[in-house]
Amino acid sequence: MSKGITKRSEDYSQWYNDIVKKADLAEHSPVRGCMIIKPYGYSIWEKIQQNLDIMFKETGHTNAYFPLFVPKSYLSKEADHVEGFAKECAVVTHYRLKNAEDGSGVIVDPEAKLEEELIIRPTSETVIWNTYKNWIQSYRDLPILLNQWANVVRWEMRTRLFLRTAEFLWQEGHTAHATSQEAIDETIQMLDVYGQFAEEFMAMPVIKGKKSESEKFPGAIDTYCIEALMQDGKALQSGTSHFLGQNFAKAFDVKYADKEGKLEYVWGTSWGVSTRLMGALIMAHSDDLGLVLPPKLAPIQVVIIPVYRNDEQKEQIAEKAKVIMKDLKAKGISVKFDDRDTHKPGWKFAEYELKGVPVRLALGPRDLENNTVEVARRDTLEKEFVSLDTATDHIVELMDKIQNNIFDKAHAFRAENTVEVDTYDEFKAVLDDKGGFISAHWDGTSETEELIKKETKATIRCIPMDQKLEEGKCIYSGKLSKGRVIFARAY
Amino acid sequence: MSKGITKRSEDYSQWYNDIVKKADLAEHSPVRGCMIIKPYGYSIWEKIQQNLDIMFKETGHTNAYFPLFVPKSYLSKEADHVEGFAKECAVVTHYRLKNAEDGSGVIVDPEAKLEEELIIRPTSETVIWNTYKNWIQSYRDLPILLNQWANVVRWEMRTRLFLRTAEFLWQEGHTAHATSQEAIDETIQMLDVYGQFAEEFMAMPVIKGKKSESEKFPGAIDTYCIEALMQDGKALQSGTSHFLGQNFAKAFDVKYADKEGKLEYVWGTSWGVSTRLMGALIMAHSDDLGLVLPPKLAPIQVVIIPVYRNDEQKEQIAEKAKVIMKDLKAKGISVKFDDRDTHKPGWKFAEYELKGVPVRLALGPRDLENNTVEVARRDTLEKEFVSLDTATDHIVELMDKIQNNIFDKAHAFRAENTVEVDTYDEFKAVLDDKGGFISAHWDGTSETEELIKKETKATIRCIPMDQKLEEGKCIYSGKLSKGRVIFARAY
Repeated sequence: MSKGITKRSEDYSQWYNDIVKKADLAEHSPVRGCMIIKPYGYSIWEKIQQNLDIMFKETGHTNAYFPLFVPKSYLSKEADHVEGFAKECAVVTHYRLKNAEDGSGVIVDPEAKLEEELIIRPTSETVIWNTYKNWIQSYRDLPILLNQWANVVRWEMRTRLFLRTAEFLWQEGHTAHATSQEAIDETIQMLDVYGQFAEEFMAMPVIKGKKSESEKFPGAIDTYCIEALMQDGKALQSGTSHFLGQNFAKAFDVKYADKEGKLEYVWGTSWGVSTRLMGALIMAHSDDLGLVLPPKLAPIQVVIIPVYRNDEQKEQIAEKAKVIMKDLKAKGISVKFDDRDTHKPGWKFAEYELKGVPVRLALGPRDLENNTVEVARRDTLEKEFVSLDTATDHIVELMDKIQNNIFDKAHAFRAENTVEVDTYDEFKAVLDDKGGFISAHWDGTSETEELIKKETKATIRCIPMDQKLEEGKCIYSGKLSKGRVIFARAY
Repeated sequence: MSKGITKRSEDYSQWYNDIVKKADLAEHSPVRGCMIIKPYGYSIWEKIQQNLDIMFKETGHTNAYFPLFVPKSYLSKEADHVEGFAKECAVVTHYRLKNAEDGSGVIVDPEAKLEEELIIRPTSETVIWNTYKNWIQSYRDLPILLNQWANVVRWEMRTRLFLRTAEFLWQEGHTAHATSQEAIDETIQMLDVYGQFAEEFMAMPVIKGKKSESEKFPGAIDTYCIEALMQDGKALQSGTSHFLGQNFAKAFDVKYADKEGKLEYVWGTSWGVSTRLMGALIMAHSDDLGLVLPPKLAPIQVVIIPVYRNDEQKEQIAEKAKVIMKDLKAKGISVKFDDRDTHKPGWKFAEYELKGVPVRLALGPRDLENNTVEVARRDTLEKEFVSLDTATDHIVELMDKIQNNIFDKAHAFRAENTVEVDTYDEFKAVLDDKGGFISAHWDGTSETEELIKKETKATIRCIPMDQKLEEGKCIYSGKLSKGRVIFARAY
């Protein structure tokens, strides 16, 4: 089976599109900029959701649901916020269709015009803080620790499946606190949750840091982020956590009475990750044969493929396969037994390779004789014969090994592709040569940042949390810098 | 604590609103017709989702995600479908805001007008069948068995929390089949899944049946439904399953090649339940003290409330409580230990009663002496002292008992409020006297149905699946009828 996947070395962007398409993850819809998440892609997203949801609940959050629509006047209440989102708002203006009088078909009924236009939420700070105003009277009502899983719309002109679409799925946490410090702690806690999820579940090492002024969320005091490195040397912002200060509390007049009865504005945070994580997951690990999934997020962790020449063999193999399945399921491993007659084993091998299934077992007549099974790893493509007596334990261990190996590989790649540079020439050379994360001194001004971006398309990904305080000279302006920041070209 | 819940006997409608509000389930948002589902309400919805999702997957379905937007031209492709939804469509016409030139604020940018208006999905048949066209070529591509969890918008003029809102959350299954029979079997299978879920999880008996022509889904050949009876004697349609025939396949030109290579139109079904189930759940079981939740859908199944006079007692009780919690959790029961100092035990008793927590445990100093715990049931309000040695097993058994008792109570209520009538006078008398399900003969015409509706506000809820073939005379027209159908006033 020819998979028709373009090689990464030939055309990275086409390789990505090919994987998304051939592994049945998603496709473009005829509705401009919107995607259809196909069943296999969605089942990976479900694993992401389930595991994040557990982490959110463990840190004290509960889910709720707020309306899809934001009245235009709400969006306008926080100046930076509306400035940031106005250019990409889908606007509902009417609430009815009718038959055209000339019989030409169905038209928008001009009589059903809304008094105030509604925006499809690009994010829900405004709707939620408008609600918090009613929920919060005293310090006893705080903190509020909510999350919602929802769809949002940002009208993007250039879209790419998972990475940038007009409609996307995400979660957005919105919390309210009595003190600045508590809100900052929450912001950092959720950054850490994202970092932990990325590394432990997605097997994707990330740099945690703070955004520069020009890159922060419209309406935030500070935006923190996790940044991952893709195989083409470009960075991908994979999650953000915002300290909102009292900005939205002031915009929506949300105050609480403290223990002395004094009225204070409430402090807020918001934080989110989206279906963009799917793009990160695909690009971080996959290869020219298809998707590579870390076991913790693989909807199918093990596939068993029977190899037989006649019905008798088929039956004997099925019997063995069922025992293996039962044992693996008892260990919490998801297994699929693909005994379809419509496809040859070789076709199936390629298919599950393409879909990134971490472990493939093949069972043939010789295995029955020898009491063995062939175990193939998707990450290393290694194959070995294992005794059926120890196969279950072997596979259980393999899950961890594969998870760790995928992380280590991505970690090694990032290490190779993170360099410190001290001059602008070096900076540009590294960018054009291999890309990656570039650690360099910056004078801290938006002007310099803007000029570097204009000249090289590289942006400051973040000021890392573990930034060393180290005096240096800005690679661009030569002015004083107090520490290195992380630059990269980014998605 | 005065709960401020209106009595059912005084004002049923206000009682419902009070429960929704006081039990922290949902509230109206300032956005017309949209609701905010509050954390406690949402946690019940999550239980509904999780259990239904398992049942969908067990019957071979997988989840996917399709766009929020439906191009106006798609909606128009199936004549009945657009006719049914045109009057309640939220329409997106623009994709950008800008600052008004006169400085008056943010306005919709007239230059950012969409070429074709987009409808916020009221349901997704059209978008999905447009996609199925590309996914289906041959019989090998069938069946397709998909579901999506999503928000939809139907612009309702009169809204009620959970029961009828402009935006609501739901799941919509959309399947495609090679034969009519297979699609009909799927339709009935999902009706049965809904019926089973309603009865086993919601503890709510339902009548399964088929809708009359005038009540069926716009675009369906047949609509099947589950109908439940509320405590005020009104019916509530709680789920529908539609046999679409080839209607959407023809509208979107979706054909498959059969084994002989002959092209045939594909057969379809769709089926859905929504946050309306929350309304059904509340109205079916709750009482004048608040919500009554069946254990299988209760986010908190057991609450433990300590009753103490000093810190020493508090500590000793906490120690016991932690043992009980651990034991119950090991049995898969969700427990909350409410040891807040800010509220008195009596306040907490009322609070969890209001929130419908099935079992309340109270632990006081005398319980420590006697090695007992006070166990209170929400459904019967009975209290008893149970030895701590057997408390866990007792509570595990109680979960089933309460679940069954709630069902039995609702079942008995329905039995009392289902009557056969043979004359129109009797029909009207029952409707005005006590409501309920009325089983009566009908001549099968839409005209009669319409006249009865106009005169009495009662509608045909369904032609029950277990309808007896029995000759009779239509209560309205006196014409021949082949069997009784179920009438009721309905939500």
